[in-house]
Amino acid sequence: MLPGFLARAVALLLGRQGRSLHLKAAGGATAVLVVVMLIGSWAVVVAEHGAPRANLRTYPQALWWSIETATTVGYGDFYPVTLGGRIIGAVVMVVGITTYGMVTAALATWFVGREQRRRHHLALHAAELGEETVHALHERFDRLERMVAGSGERN
Amino acid sequence: MLPGFLARAVALLLGRQGRSLHLKAAGGATAVLVVVMLIGSWAVVVAEHGAPRANLRTYPQALWWSIETATTVGYGDFYPVTLGGRIIGAVVMVVGITTYGMVTAALATWFVGREQRRRHHLALHAAELGEETVHALHERFDRLERMVAGSGERN
Amino acid sequence: MLPGFLARAVALLLGRQGRSLHLKAAGGATAVLVVVMLIGSWAVVVAEHGAPRANLRTYPQALWWSIETATTVGYGDFYPVTLGGRIIGAVVMVVGITTYGMVTAALATWFVGREQRRRHHLALHAAELGEETVHALHERFDRLERMVAGSGERN
Amino acid sequence: MLPGFLARAVALLLGRQGRSLHLKAAGGATAVLVVVMLIGSWAVVVAEHGAPRANLRTYPQALWWSIETATTVGYGDFYPVTLGGRIIGAVVMVVGITTYGMVTAALATWFVGREQRRRHHLALHAAELGEETVHALHERFDRLERMVAGSGERN
Repeated sequence: MLPGFLARAVALLLGRQGRSLHLKAAGGATAVLVVVMLIGSWAVVVAEHGAPRANLRTYPQALWWSIETATTVGYGDFYPVTLGGRIIGAVVMVVGITTYGMVTAALATWFVGREQRRRHHLALHAAELGEETVHALHERFDRLERMVAGSGERN
Repeated sequence: MLPGFLARAVALLLGRQGRSLHLKAAGGATAVLVVVMLIGSWAVVVAEHGAPRANLRTYPQALWWSIETATTVGYGDFYPVTLGGRIIGAVVMVVGITTYGMVTAALATWFVGREQRRRHHLALHAAELGEETVHALHERFDRLERMVAGSGERN
Repeated sequence: MLPGFLARAVALLLGRQGRSLHLKAAGGATAVLVVVMLIGSWAVVVAEHGAPRANLRTYPQALWWSIETATTVGYGDFYPVTLGGRIIGAVVMVVGITTYGMVTAALATWFVGREQRRRHHLALHAAELGEETVHALHERFDRLERMVAGSGERN
Repeated sequence: MLPGFLARAVALLLGRQGRSLHLKAAGGATAVLVVVMLIGSWAVVVAEHGAPRANLRTYPQALWWSIETATTVGYGDFYPVTLGGRIIGAVVMVVGITTYGMVTAALATWFVGREQRRRHHLALHAAELGEETVHALHERFDRLERMVAGSGERN
């Protein structure tokens, strides 16, 4: 059931081909983070199993630990004590802050794009004015040609 | 009294229709965060009530906990131990870092906009030069027409 | 001695009038953060003084606490336990993450500006081409006027 | 062996001369962070050695501590207790969040650049239209000159 849910979530986040890079990157990183947290929570319990001062013993505990680790809150109520558990912890941390950086950067890109679209409308307006100008110049040529032609005929 | 204060805060932050998206998003997220922290502090005390090793027992303690959770400091002096309390904690964390990402992105958009407005002035200056050019070309046509007309009459 | 150092630091960070908004905002926020950390470390020791389970007892301890609080690391080796101490802690947290958001946004603005200057050169190049075009059009008018004048005289 | 690996990593990250500022800054900051974490982990063990309540005793422990410090997770399972150790810790924190800010800003710049390149294509298209316009105006002049010349000859 879980893989089906994940596959659908990934398809939802990555599947829209027309979307911009920043939306795909932020969505993709979020999907990767969710997968890393779900798999990492299971793996850290396996890695910590049997260690003398281990405090990450059950999947629900590890899931809570992965949330407070990925958001960098880190209360210290749960933390890995084995080499394997700490490598998993480091991966959750790095994927967590990278995802967060991507979401922040994607938000900034979205905001900047909205502000620029306003100015872009101004630029399009200027381009339309340019076309009017060119049309006016062609009309001046038409009129001048008729005058030259008329001046030639009158002779 | 509280709802009245909140309604006014939300109105202050969201109510300006003319404001840009990034200002409305950052203000709205901040208002949502304040509401989530105030309600979450109350809800976490209710959720933790009666749990054997619960340490979040009073509203003032929970308010302090929500501040150190939303800012991702997480000293570990207070943390939820029940499933309900941890779900509330996860919501405070995610809303906290999302708000922070929105404020950072809004600041970047504001800074980038200020820098671009400088260059925009340059572009407007260039557009004004363009209009002068078009005016000069029309004057050349006027003069040429008078010359052609004069050349025709002289015959 | 300290105020003199601070005054010089603030003057260094804020005093350059010609600087862009994002550099002034990031520099100003950093200066405010340093002042808040130095004053907050002193104030938190005063606020915590005499509280039963207080662990922030000396200025050097409080300075270390303010660093791990402003960077949101929060080991939990030191934390305020009184209302006054927690208000000071909340101020250090909020000023810390706001400063960090401003520095990140200023970096983004600086990077984006550098990338746009490249494209701006392209735009300036296009504007120069436009001036050459206008010059060429005026020369065509000059030549045409000479032709019309010559055609009139020959009659 | 380690210096050789580092030298190669730095060369890989900084050595591409043609790269943009934001990529070089983010890559350079990441390389500096890795060096600071590796050297800081060794230095903090030396600084903490012999302190009464020291908990950072071995290099592997200190490496794990530097990861949770640089990412600002800070569980509190390990933390420095001496002045020297805390100065090293402060350096790891500040370099860590600065690196993270640079990576976020570089991501934003990359995303914004991709979005602008789209609009840039539009601008290039507009510039091409401008050249067509100029070509058309020159053709009008050619035709008008032939007419004036013909009108002069016919007399």
